[in-house]
Amino acid sequence: MIILGIDPGTATTGYGVIKVPDDILGKEFKYDIELIGYGNISTSKDDLMTKRLVVLHDGMEAVVNKYKPDMIVIEMLFFGANTRTAISVGQARGVIMLSAGRRSIPIFEYTGPSVKLMVAGSGRADKNQVHDGVRKFLGTSLRRRNKLKATWKGGHLDDATDALAIAICHVLKMVSK
Amino acid sequence: MIILGIDPGTATTGYGVIKVPDDILGKEFKYDIELIGYGNISTSKDDLMTKRLVVLHDGMEAVVNKYKPDMIVIEMLFFGANTRTAISVGQARGVIMLSAGRRSIPIFEYTGPSVKLMVAGSGRADKNQVHDGVRKFLGTSLRRRNKLKATWKGGHLDDATDALAIAICHVLKMVSK
Repeated sequence: MIILGIDPGTATTGYGVIKVPDDILGKEFKYDIELIGYGNISTSKDDLMTKRLVVLHDGMEAVVNKYKPDMIVIEMLFFGANTRTAISVGQARGVIMLSAGRRSIPIFEYTGPSVKLMVAGSGRADKNQVHDGVRKFLGTSLRRRNKLKATWKGGHLDDATDALAIAICHVLKMVSK
Repeated sequence: MIILGIDPGTATTGYGVIKVPDDILGKEFKYDIELIGYGNISTSKDDLMTKRLVVLHDGMEAVVNKYKPDMIVIEMLFFGANTRTAISVGQARGVIMLSAGRRSIPIFEYTGPSVKLMVAGSGRADKNQVHDGVRKFLGTSLRRRNKLKATWKGGHLDDATDALAIAICHVLKMVSK
């Protein structure tokens, strides 16, 4: 089962792809989450918003065509965000969800605090704690891919790591039901 | 010059298409706005949001392919709207703006109060006053199309009329510069 996590934004949309056994729901959970891929789709603030949404949508199409996810998990803005942010994130979500809708891929949503709670043990966990949580859950898989781990330590991929946390959160929610 | 006005929403997106002389900026404005078309793109609340965004995007593509607008004018949410509404409208805007971006059609934005002020003379005008304003600016054109006027009186097309008001607002802004 391939799960694509998305941390949506018009400037940078992080994505993270993980794989879990298809029968994960019927078994004892043994942290066997495999890292498949991750990255960012970035757009230039010098471009018009309409152009940026095209770049984001095309990038999302490429990711979905490459990894063929069985489900997509996307961060949900919690209430109280300001209108400008909500509109901007909403626009990014719209073109992302369009890719899911075209292929009838189911979408699941979690708020940031909910992801932090599941992956790092606290709804108020900071970036580093979330990253540590992601490393823990992807441990075996990461050790097989030392290069990725090295890249990660550089901290260049905050949005991609958040996207992996979102995907992992969904796995934990599935097995804890 | 073909101008497409859009009142965006995931349940109903109203659109209105008007035509003004290409040299409108250099002439005295004589209310010569021609009504070309209008309608709603509606989605079912029984469908998943991803599916509804696909329906909205496909509908927008059909409208843009049919009318080939030179510019698109879209309502901008003003600040203070709640997060849920802003996200939902943002998602609708995202898939609408994607159609504009793909074709490099310029987009202009006005808030609701700004449209009301230009078309109906007051930022706090009610629905009926906005509709009267739209009728005034499209007067000659509407009289040539009695059938449309009759439909309108039924009041079934609030969103489409708001979309026409948004398009007309942009014309008035252009000539008043």
